[in-house]
Amino acid sequence: MDLIGLKDLSTQQINQFLDRAEALLDGDGNHRTPAKYRRELDGVSVALLFFEPSTRTRVSFELAAKQLGAHTVRVGSEESSIQKGESVLDTCRNLEAMGLDALVVRHNERHLPYAVKDRVDIPLINAGNGSGEHPTQALIDALTLRRAFRRRGEPLEGKRVAIIGDIVHSRVARSDVYALRKLGCEVVLAGPSMLVPKDGDEKWNAERATSRDEALADADAVIMLRVQQERIHGELVDANLYVREWGIDAQVVDECMKPGAFILHPGPVIRGMELTASVADSEQSLILEQVGYGIAVRQAVLLECLQEINS
Amino acid sequence: MDLIGLKDLSTQQINQFLDRAEALLDGDGNHRTPAKYRRELDGVSVALLFFEPSTRTRVSFELAAKQLGAHTVRVGSEESSIQKGESVLDTCRNLEAMGLDALVVRHNERHLPYAVKDRVDIPLINAGNGSGEHPTQALIDALTLRRAFRRRGEPLEGKRVAIIGDIVHSRVARSDVYALRKLGCEVVLAGPSMLVPKDGDEKWNAERATSRDEALADADAVIMLRVQQERIHGELVDANLYVREWGIDAQVVDECMKPGAFILHPGPVIRGMELTASVADSEQSLILEQVGYGIAVRQAVLLECLQEINS
Amino acid sequence: MDLIGLKDLSTQQINQFLDRAEALLDGDGNHRTPAKYRRELDGVSVALLFFEPSTRTRVSFELAAKQLGAHTVRVGSEESSIQKGESVLDTCRNLEAMGLDALVVRHNERHLPYAVKDRVDIPLINAGNGSGEHPTQALIDALTLRRAFRRRGEPLEGKRVAIIGDIVHSRVARSDVYALRKLGCEVVLAGPSMLVPKDGDEKWNAERATSRDEALADADAVIMLRVQQERIHGELVDANLYVREWGIDAQVVDECMKPGAFILHPGPVIRGMELTASVADSEQSLILEQVGYGIAVRQAVLLECLQEINS
Repeated sequence: MDLIGLKDLSTQQINQFLDRAEALLDGDGNHRTPAKYRRELDGVSVALLFFEPSTRTRVSFELAAKQLGAHTVRVGSEESSIQKGESVLDTCRNLEAMGLDALVVRHNERHLPYAVKDRVDIPLINAGNGSGEHPTQALIDALTLRRAFRRRGEPLEGKRVAIIGDIVHSRVARSDVYALRKLGCEVVLAGPSMLVPKDGDEKWNAERATSRDEALADADAVIMLRVQQERIHGELVDANLYVREWGIDAQVVDECMKPGAFILHPGPVIRGMELTASVADSEQSLILEQVGYGIAVRQAVLLECLQEINS
Repeated sequence: MDLIGLKDLSTQQINQFLDRAEALLDGDGNHRTPAKYRRELDGVSVALLFFEPSTRTRVSFELAAKQLGAHTVRVGSEESSIQKGESVLDTCRNLEAMGLDALVVRHNERHLPYAVKDRVDIPLINAGNGSGEHPTQALIDALTLRRAFRRRGEPLEGKRVAIIGDIVHSRVARSDVYALRKLGCEVVLAGPSMLVPKDGDEKWNAERATSRDEALADADAVIMLRVQQERIHGELVDANLYVREWGIDAQVVDECMKPGAFILHPGPVIRGMELTASVADSEQSLILEQVGYGIAVRQAVLLECLQEINS
Repeated sequence: MDLIGLKDLSTQQINQFLDRAEALLDGDGNHRTPAKYRRELDGVSVALLFFEPSTRTRVSFELAAKQLGAHTVRVGSEESSIQKGESVLDTCRNLEAMGLDALVVRHNERHLPYAVKDRVDIPLINAGNGSGEHPTQALIDALTLRRAFRRRGEPLEGKRVAIIGDIVHSRVARSDVYALRKLGCEVVLAGPSMLVPKDGDEKWNAERATSRDEALADADAVIMLRVQQERIHGELVDANLYVREWGIDAQVVDECMKPGAFILHPGPVIRGMELTASVADSEQSLILEQVGYGIAVRQAVLLECLQEINS
C-alpha cells in the first residue's frame, strides 16, 4: 500500500493510522519501540530518498524503520546517479529491481510521487512533495490534538482549528486540512492575502479569516506554519510586518486566544518569527509533543504500508 | 582476499563468484537474503569509501553487507578528513587500524586500489577505479547473460557479445571483456573511433567492428555503455551524431540485431541517448535483471573476500 | 551523564574511562567488540551531529555505537533543518523529544555544548567544540601512553610529555593537558610564539619551552599537533619555516629526543609537515595504536554516559 496523501483516505483509514501509532506509545505517551516490535520488519529494506533538506522527517523515518528491525539506505541528490543524468523515476525503479521493499521520498516536485507510484510496485511513502502533501506530518498533528483534547476529557470531533501562515505553498497545511476535516473539525485559514487560498476555492474545504485575531477568536487550537525564508528573500513577505500581523507573542495569547487553546507548529520553528520563544516553550505549546510522536506515526505508516510483505 | 579486478582471476574463480551469487537467489531468480545467511557477517564492519557519485553500486554494497548482518560506515570526500589534507591511503590505513574488516572503494584514480592493496592487510574490494576496472559490475553482467541463455537451454560459452560506446574510458567495458573472454565468449567492440582501442591493442583481447551495425550483425547480446556527459560537454562527442551512429532504437533492433539478442546496460541509462525508452523497457532488455542481481553478486564478493575472518 | 570536557573530571573518573576501554581490548591490545557486549545497547538510539568534517572521530563513534547494538542516525549541516533557520540547540531538543537516547556533537563553536547541556536531559558527548575540548581524543592519547609505558614495565605517572604545534587553537592540546596532568604527568608546550599560550597563563597548567629541541630534550613522549591548513593559508604560518623549526624528521629523533621516546599524533597527519613519513611509520610512533583505541574508548564513553538508561 502507498501513502501519497490524505486527500483520498477515509476517516476510518486515518483513525487506523492514529490508533496504530498510539499503540506504540507507553502510558505516559512517550515513544520507545516496544520490545515485541523490534524484529517486526526483520529482513525488510527501506530506501530513504530525500532530495530536500530535512532533519526531523528523515531522522524519524530512519529510526522508525531501524527500530522495527529494517535496514535503511539513504539516497540524496548530491551523491547519486542523478548527477549522471538519471531521472528520479529511474532511480526508484532501480531500487525496486534491486529488491528494496519500500521507498520513502521527499522531493520538491509535487507531481513526482504520482509518476513513481504508477511505475513502481513496492510501497511508496510520501515524505513531502513540493507544495503538495505531507501526510505523515498531518497524522502527527491530528494525533497530537486528539491526545491533547482527550487529556481534558474532550473529543477532537467538533473542535475548531486555525491554521496561520503561508497556506498556499504549504504541504503541511494541505494535509492538515484533509486530516482535520475528515476527523470532524472545523478549520479556519488565515495569512497574508497573497499566501492564502481565495475564499471561493472549494479544494480547500475550509473557512477563511481576514486577520490573525479573527482566526484565533473561537479556535480551540492553532497550527502555525513556518515562514519560508525563500519567500522572505523574494520579498513576498516583510519579516517585521509578518511578525506584527501574523506572529504570536504572549500578549496575543492573552488577548486573542481562548484560554487553554493549544499551539502547534510542524517545525522547524524560527523563534521570534511565527512564535516568540516564550510562547513556543509555554504550557499551551504542543510543539515538542508533536516531535515526540514522529517515530511512532512513521512506524505506524511503515507497518501499514508493508503489512502484505510482512504477513 | 582482495577483489581489485578480473584481469588476473581464473575462469574457475569467476565461476565461483557467479555460483555463490546464484545460490542467494530464489527459484524465480529474485534476491531476498535467505534467512540462514542473515547473521553470516555478524560482528563484521565494512567501510564504504565512495569518492565519486554512485547510487546503484553504493546502495547494493551497503544492503549486501547489512543484510548479511555486517555493520557499515560510509566515508566520502565531502565530509572526511581528506579535506584536512589526509591522503586516501592514510584514511584506508586508519580504517584498518580502527578495526574495520573490509574496505569497498570507488575512486577516480585508476592507480589507487593498487597503492592501497600494498599497504593494507584487510580485504579491499574495488567498486570502480577511474577508467580501470569495475569487477562487480562485470560479474553482474556475466551472471545476467549466463542465466538468460540458460533459460533458452543454451550455454554462455561460445556466445558473441558486442560492447558499444566509449570503450577506452570505460571500466565496465574493461572488466566485461576480461570476464566474458574467460567464460568463453567472443567479444566485439565498437564506438566512435577516438573512444575505441586501436585494432592492434592486445591488452583488449577482443575484435573491433567499425560500425554499430557490423558489431550487432552476429551478436547474441549487446552491452551498451553510458555516454559520459563530461565527454559530451568536452565536445568529444556530438550527442545527435552519437544517437544516430551508435544508439539503438526499435528500428535498429529490427533491422540489425539477431532475433532475440539480449540488450544490457550497466546503468544509469540516459533514455534517448544510448537506448530509446521503448528499447530499454523491451522484452529483450535485461537491464532491470542486471540491477536485480546487484545485491546477490556483492554478497557473494563480500562472503568470498571475508571468508577467512568468518571461518 | 554528559561528557563535555576533561577539565572538571577527577583522576578517578578518567581512570574509569581508561579501564573500561581497556576491558574491551583483547590480549594483544586489539579491539573487536566482545560478543557479550554486542547487544549491550539494544534498543538505544544515538544521534551523531557532525557540523565539521571528520572521518576518524565520526566513524569510530558510529561503529562504537553500532557494535554495541545501538541504532545511529547522522545529522550534518548540509542536509539538515539548519538550512531552514533552525538553531543547533533546537535540533538537539527535537532529537531529544523524538526519543533519541544520546547526542554526540562536533561543532566549531566552543560555547555550543554548554548551551545544549543546559537545555537537554539526555547524555551529550562532545566530539570536539571549536578550540574548546576533544575529550575522547585525549582519553585515547592517555590510554595509548599508559599502555606503551606499561609494556616497558613503567607507570604513566611521572612521565614528561611534550606537546608541539598550534597549542592555543587546539582542542586536542587542551584536553590532553587536562588528562595528562590529572594522571600525574609533567607537560611541556612548544610551538610558534603566536600559537602558544603565554607563560603566565595559569589555565594551561603546563610548562613552556621556547624551541622544539628544548621541548624534546627530557620528554618521554611527544604529541605532535596537526598544522591547521586554514592558518597556513591565512599566512600565520610559513610551511617551510614550520617544518624546519617544529617538524620532526629522523635526524631530530636521533639528535634531540630521548632514546625510545614515543611519538603521538591525533591525526590526520600531513606527512612531510609535522612529521616525515619515515618518522610517522617508525617503531617509536604510536599513531596507528592511537587510532586502534578509537572505538574502544568511544564505547567506554557511550557505556558510561548511557548506563542509567541501560540499567
